[in-house]
Amino acid sequence: MSEKIPVGVLGATGSVGQRFVTLLAEHPWFDLVLLTGSTRSAGMPYGEAVNWMQATPLPPRVAAITVQQSMPPLPARMLFSALGGEVAGPLETELARAGHVIISNASSHRMDPDVPLIVPEVNADHLELARRQSFGDGAIFTNPNCSTIGLAMALKPLMNVFGVQEVLCVTMQALSGAGVPGVPSLAIMDNVIPFIDGEEEKVESEAAKILGTLRGDGIVPAELTISAQCNRVAVLDGHTECVSVRLSRPAELEEIKESFHRFSGEPQRLRLPSAPSRPIHLCEQPDRPQPRLDRDTGGGMTVSIGRLRPCPILDVKFVCLSHNTLRGAAGGAVLLAELLAAKDMMAGITVPGPGDGS
Amino acid sequence: MSEKIPVGVLGATGSVGQRFVTLLAEHPWFDLVLLTGSTRSAGMPYGEAVNWMQATPLPPRVAAITVQQSMPPLPARMLFSALGGEVAGPLETELARAGHVIISNASSHRMDPDVPLIVPEVNADHLELARRQSFGDGAIFTNPNCSTIGLAMALKPLMNVFGVQEVLCVTMQALSGAGVPGVPSLAIMDNVIPFIDGEEEKVESEAAKILGTLRGDGIVPAELTISAQCNRVAVLDGHTECVSVRLSRPAELEEIKESFHRFSGEPQRLRLPSAPSRPIHLCEQPDRPQPRLDRDTGGGMTVSIGRLRPCPILDVKFVCLSHNTLRGAAGGAVLLAELLAAKDMMAGITVPGPGDGS
Amino acid sequence: MSEKIPVGVLGATGSVGQRFVTLLAEHPWFDLVLLTGSTRSAGMPYGEAVNWMQATPLPPRVAAITVQQSMPPLPARMLFSALGGEVAGPLETELARAGHVIISNASSHRMDPDVPLIVPEVNADHLELARRQSFGDGAIFTNPNCSTIGLAMALKPLMNVFGVQEVLCVTMQALSGAGVPGVPSLAIMDNVIPFIDGEEEKVESEAAKILGTLRGDGIVPAELTISAQCNRVAVLDGHTECVSVRLSRPAELEEIKESFHRFSGEPQRLRLPSAPSRPIHLCEQPDRPQPRLDRDTGGGMTVSIGRLRPCPILDVKFVCLSHNTLRGAAGGAVLLAELLAAKDMMAGITVPGPGDGS
Amino acid sequence: MSEKIPVGVLGATGSVGQRFVTLLAEHPWFDLVLLTGSTRSAGMPYGEAVNWMQATPLPPRVAAITVQQSMPPLPARMLFSALGGEVAGPLETELARAGHVIISNASSHRMDPDVPLIVPEVNADHLELARRQSFGDGAIFTNPNCSTIGLAMALKPLMNVFGVQEVLCVTMQALSGAGVPGVPSLAIMDNVIPFIDGEEEKVESEAAKILGTLRGDGIVPAELTISAQCNRVAVLDGHTECVSVRLSRPAELEEIKESFHRFSGEPQRLRLPSAPSRPIHLCEQPDRPQPRLDRDTGGGMTVSIGRLRPCPILDVKFVCLSHNTLRGAAGGAVLLAELLAAKDMMAGITVPGPGDGS
Repeated sequence: MSEKIPVGVLGATGSVGQRFVTLLAEHPWFDLVLLTGSTRSAGMPYGEAVNWMQATPLPPRVAAITVQQSMPPLPARMLFSALGGEVAGPLETELARAGHVIISNASSHRMDPDVPLIVPEVNADHLELARRQSFGDGAIFTNPNCSTIGLAMALKPLMNVFGVQEVLCVTMQALSGAGVPGVPSLAIMDNVIPFIDGEEEKVESEAAKILGTLRGDGIVPAELTISAQCNRVAVLDGHTECVSVRLSRPAELEEIKESFHRFSGEPQRLRLPSAPSRPIHLCEQPDRPQPRLDRDTGGGMTVSIGRLRPCPILDVKFVCLSHNTLRGAAGGAVLLAELLAAKDMMAGITVPGPGDGS
Repeated sequence: MSEKIPVGVLGATGSVGQRFVTLLAEHPWFDLVLLTGSTRSAGMPYGEAVNWMQATPLPPRVAAITVQQSMPPLPARMLFSALGGEVAGPLETELARAGHVIISNASSHRMDPDVPLIVPEVNADHLELARRQSFGDGAIFTNPNCSTIGLAMALKPLMNVFGVQEVLCVTMQALSGAGVPGVPSLAIMDNVIPFIDGEEEKVESEAAKILGTLRGDGIVPAELTISAQCNRVAVLDGHTECVSVRLSRPAELEEIKESFHRFSGEPQRLRLPSAPSRPIHLCEQPDRPQPRLDRDTGGGMTVSIGRLRPCPILDVKFVCLSHNTLRGAAGGAVLLAELLAAKDMMAGITVPGPGDGS
Repeated sequence: MSEKIPVGVLGATGSVGQRFVTLLAEHPWFDLVLLTGSTRSAGMPYGEAVNWMQATPLPPRVAAITVQQSMPPLPARMLFSALGGEVAGPLETELARAGHVIISNASSHRMDPDVPLIVPEVNADHLELARRQSFGDGAIFTNPNCSTIGLAMALKPLMNVFGVQEVLCVTMQALSGAGVPGVPSLAIMDNVIPFIDGEEEKVESEAAKILGTLRGDGIVPAELTISAQCNRVAVLDGHTECVSVRLSRPAELEEIKESFHRFSGEPQRLRLPSAPSRPIHLCEQPDRPQPRLDRDTGGGMTVSIGRLRPCPILDVKFVCLSHNTLRGAAGGAVLLAELLAAKDMMAGITVPGPGDGS
Repeated sequence: MSEKIPVGVLGATGSVGQRFVTLLAEHPWFDLVLLTGSTRSAGMPYGEAVNWMQATPLPPRVAAITVQQSMPPLPARMLFSALGGEVAGPLETELARAGHVIISNASSHRMDPDVPLIVPEVNADHLELARRQSFGDGAIFTNPNCSTIGLAMALKPLMNVFGVQEVLCVTMQALSGAGVPGVPSLAIMDNVIPFIDGEEEKVESEAAKILGTLRGDGIVPAELTISAQCNRVAVLDGHTECVSVRLSRPAELEEIKESFHRFSGEPQRLRLPSAPSRPIHLCEQPDRPQPRLDRDTGGGMTVSIGRLRPCPILDVKFVCLSHNTLRGAAGGAVLLAELLAAKDMMAGITVPGPGDGS
């Protein structure tokens, strides 16, 4: 590849924005040239505007970038959106109309009929849905909710091999999912909060779209019913989910393990830079996965599954863990952008490809 | 009542034993006269033998009691057992044979066909089962597993009014359930452990016995199927459970709320000293119950239920919280002993009653 | 006492305000009749305006009180101020001018030359300083910073018996000291924050005033130097302080222990309702005091001291613990109000006394 | 370097042992060929004997090594000792007598007059002390206590430039310092434990030896007095220390900063593989260093210092942070071994050098 693709981050000072900056600062394909922020931050060097909270230091080159407002024109066609829910919707639409390709972590457009909602290993074929958008050269692609992503990764191989009809899912979600300031320490220490506003609805609706089928007139949702109960627990990173599944046909546990083991997708086939070698890791120990010990597997991009056993009510149950701010947010979005770049497929929106993909 | 009933605690130096001591030291009906411990502790004043970890101070009168070994003869007929699982079984049997009435928090005898497994509000009638025991004047009564108790309390009103067929239950259990030293801090900080050895089996089997029916030849287990997933979380006290239930007949949410509201049992009717005025508290706020805020409701003896809503797969789902070392262990066992004393019913085992029950 | 004294709480919806409400709702001397809040809350019943976060339920009588704005005229002469730092100063002055007696937990007026800064056991005689105020019938009394209070209580007996010259103090402060939302959970989990804005300055300056001497022309500060380092740790309630002290004359450890044991003040002599029987508890165990185990001693009003031993650089060192929102904030302010009421001393401001003080 | 130096780890299954394995598995100079354990573990493959708790996976090559007992003869001359305190002393002596070079993390021999107690950046010249040992070809080198190491690193530049007379140090120490099972979660959640058995004595005595001067007849301890107060807090890794220092001559803060900035030692000069480029990092932000954000600086080998300001009692105060299981234990010991190898200086004990040191 002769040249990197210039990219920007919308809402770069927040916690998801900072994760994007971390992942993009040294990216082999993308060149981080643009950071946007609020009116308060605009005009300041990013290093002054941001309250940097990542464990790795902020690269001086990035710290020196002057923060801009999230308004067109912007000097990079591909934009990663870490905008907050309330402003994200109209702003992303405006930028897509101005010709930008948006990879959004916000929920605003996820369920729009013409907007792809992508987990790269699961439904790379849904990217084509964007051709139905009417933004001219622009386009919007979205990343699912952080709890949905791990679940969709776990369900896809089961769906492929056995069919999935019903899913009961209880989540124990990390604090970083709520951003900063997020959950007050006085609220969560020595405690569990059994409610996350809007989260259960997202898990119950998004998975059916992701696992659905692309037809001529859009996505036909998968015919499965999901019942979610979402809890916040005192964990920094990593969403743990207890899942029970009713399959469409009987299956031995060994067959199910095999389906998880064999699972692989476009990111692995294309050897995308952020793709883990295996999307799913099956834990052997009886007390795994655990968020602190397993969230960083595969650079935070692998979903860990363990405790696979029969469910006396549905068919099978297991524990599933994914890193909510890597695989479940910024990392998933970057992988999606790599997929777009590697496929170089969309004439209308012409993502400049990386040449040899290395 | 002219005289208090002399009682003892077996295994009094451990964490459940300490909770028993706290609850019995000032009890209106029971006079704590006996504390047993290991060979190491025997002969020492309790105040020296114990590493007291309760928030309330150890009463000097109790601190001065000389610890004895858990061997007959023992100078109190009624014994609360906080013995560890491996020694509890044979020792409790031996003491029952020697004429003692054992109220045990250990799991050894819970599923024995002739041993009552009691949640006082749920199945006080099962006490009669003890008449089938062949210990002469002695008897063994048991307290269920700490996770089972909250669940059984929540299911009983549903069963009474609507019938219950299937229950999916995911627990988030407190650290105190594992005793001391219990879970290492390095294992649980910033973490969830999705496995508690033997716990899921207990929840799945004990509830059917508790909710079962006493017939001439013993308990006929309730015909319901339970699927449990048990997790340890960084909470000091209070087990939170996400429950989905399939009922036997359709029910409106308001009817279900009403069944929880109205639920009451023998402990309330008899106004037992440890009975909460209401066994179940229905939380109105959308984000409750929470262990730190709700575990002490009703002196730690009330089960809190919240987030009642339809389940798209089974019929209804909700969150249930109970204090695992009070309602779920020592407090539940003391309430059971009060029930025995108040009913003064068993000719064979002749528990001296409290007279007017006040 | 025939009648209770009507009182109000300024800024009643915040976390300190809620603590005041909890302490005053059933107070034997005070009748809580007034609650003030922001423009947003004014006009609403307190039960709707507040996000109640206390472990004990909000009494229905208090929940029904209509929240008022913090503006004169207000229907209670004695006002407890839980106002935030920025608005507290001018508002308290205005209310004192309107004839109110303010007991303030805010820092604004603490170092004003004519404003008493009181720890009731330490410097009850400083109440007289208020006679120098020019508010007519009104007056302002203040409660010290939460870290200062525990330290001042520990230093007072040393000062009385041996003299104190230098104090090095490193605090490990609880999260509740920062209120709600306060410290984000992402900031403090698995972490220590070695900085609390303005806190070290308060500890270093306030203690000298509290331990100073009332003269005709005001308080002469104590001649001692304090060096403070303040840290935030993952504890809900209870400030722990590691203290090293240089005394004015040599002292044996036993003499020092004796001075702590014997320490007592006006609140004990007058048997004030909120006064602990002993202001200082000396812990015998080598690993105490600990915040979770010792913060509630004496209803959260006792300061616990342990690990007393020689300091190889200064003279003596020890660990000191106090409950920061009880003794260190609302509880200390209520005790101060009880002291004012019991002394019934100030002609100018005429606090109606409780009669027999019981 | 043509060949790696074969090394072993004594007590390899414990938590410090596991850290050694992690650091040595891919070391550029050392070849990990030997792992010892208890009688229970001996004979088993390491992968089965160990309860692996590190975030990085156990390399298969190491998992396959058969655990041996810690008895001579052992097939590696250089041995890293992670043995527990009680057995470490005699066993290390026996192995040194058998010709082994021991790099010990245990405390047993630290204060022996002929045993070097080394922080490589601080007192590399003390290695020569080992020539006075009478173990023939064998030798014992020791690593200081985890709290001492950070403190010694912070004091050394001050001592070099200004002289140090008195040091008051209050630590807030991480849970990993206590190993596994270590501190029970019930003991430390929502708590601080203001006592670590033997820790204060180690900090007060070891630093004087490390900062002392090697003379013909041994080490002359530095003439400084240290007063330590040691606390355990709910942090996984990283010891935070609040330090006040009396210097021998007046110093401006800028001069002190400069002395920290310039500090460098033998490991930097020799470019040892585990040496951080800068041993001390000065934090600019007012609320740093913080254990979770700063412990991994320099691969966990850099000491972070912040909040430098005047002390109104001694001269200067600051906060110092070091990773207790990397810089403070296994990482420091490996750096010490690299120093030994690179200097290749001791005829008697002939450590095979790495050739070009790269």
